[in-house]
Amino acid sequence: MPLVRISLAQGKSAAVKNHISDAIHQALVHTFNVPADDRFHVISEHPAGDFICTPEYLGIRHTADAVFIQITCNEGRSLEMKQALYRHISDGIAERAGIPRSDVIISLLETKKENWSFGNGIAQYALPGANVPGQSPATAQR
Amino acid sequence: MPLVRISLAQGKSAAVKNHISDAIHQALVHTFNVPADDRFHVISEHPAGDFICTPEYLGIRHTADAVFIQITCNEGRSLEMKQALYRHISDGIAERAGIPRSDVIISLLETKKENWSFGNGIAQYALPGANVPGQSPATAQR
Amino acid sequence: MPLVRISLAQGKSAAVKNHISDAIHQALVHTFNVPADDRFHVISEHPAGDFICTPEYLGIRHTADAVFIQITCNEGRSLEMKQALYRHISDGIAERAGIPRSDVIISLLETKKENWSFGNGIAQYALPGANVPGQSPATAQR
Repeated sequence: MPLVRISLAQGKSAAVKNHISDAIHQALVHTFNVPADDRFHVISEHPAGDFICTPEYLGIRHTADAVFIQITCNEGRSLEMKQALYRHISDGIAERAGIPRSDVIISLLETKKENWSFGNGIAQYALPGANVPGQSPATAQR
Repeated sequence: MPLVRISLAQGKSAAVKNHISDAIHQALVHTFNVPADDRFHVISEHPAGDFICTPEYLGIRHTADAVFIQITCNEGRSLEMKQALYRHISDGIAERAGIPRSDVIISLLETKKENWSFGNGIAQYALPGANVPGQSPATAQR
Repeated sequence: MPLVRISLAQGKSAAVKNHISDAIHQALVHTFNVPADDRFHVISEHPAGDFICTPEYLGIRHTADAVFIQITCNEGRSLEMKQALYRHISDGIAERAGIPRSDVIISLLETKKENWSFGNGIAQYALPGANVPGQSPATAQR
């Protein structure tokens, strides 16, 4: 269910890009209860001049290695879950891809569960009794 | 008003990409009451390794033909309208572009009507008396 | 904090693309109270056939120079601030990049302040006492 957009400057190897994608997916599985087979990622490489990242914001330095990660997911995760997600993504990317944790920039977009179709023209999460990952029953009823 | 982002793996012909875009637009016109001249689409092709789609999720198989469609539109459409949109998009892409309905993945992002400018620096839908497509008067007043 | 996606048809010079990005950033600083060092932009050029813009909508003509700008930012800006943002962006792009104001299409996506991490795996705007740009204290408490 998350749709993940990964944007970075040109020049990373296929292996590094795979590691970034893997780290994000593992973090989503671990912290947001995303099923292991629920993975939809697109990676966009940009010429250096078309990828513009401030050299420093909020006291955090950024380099040409910066990665912007925008994740569209269902609404309803708690602040604690979001904090755990950010920590796991940045740790995982640092460990697997060798990119500094300071260069991992994350943005979440939250949507309603009926705002997805995973094929066949059906709104799978809006079906009666659907198991919507990561949402507690109380949250799912909002 | 919808801004449509179409992401797919490299290698589709221009004709197939046009058919995909046409099918989405026709579905928006038919089910979301989008005016025929309200069309803003961008298509992004990704090297195969940069377009990552699970081979199967929720019992639905996906292939290298998968298409991710993310539509930013005004909030307020009913569940029934969304279900009709998904059905029409997947049917239309299957018929026109020959892509399996199972490979059509859709994500909706909903925004307020004042969150758009269609040129000249004006928030057209926030003008008094603006006709906001697809929203009933009751919905528009929320 | 805003994540800015700029989409346009291939063929613009690096200088024009820089001017577009600069104009958007200056408008965000001026109207949305975004800090000058808070800048995260990605520019995507598309082959002409993959960038589809209606020739006219709501009486406004569009050309091959059209630019789609999608800005993800925190929720809570007033209608007046959004109207000022649109005006400043379109004026700035016209003046700096020579693109008609009619060809500047803008979409805002609003998120919660806890939906960001600017590095190091931390949700900076969710920290106690965080200074969240552009939000009044009353708004921030919503």
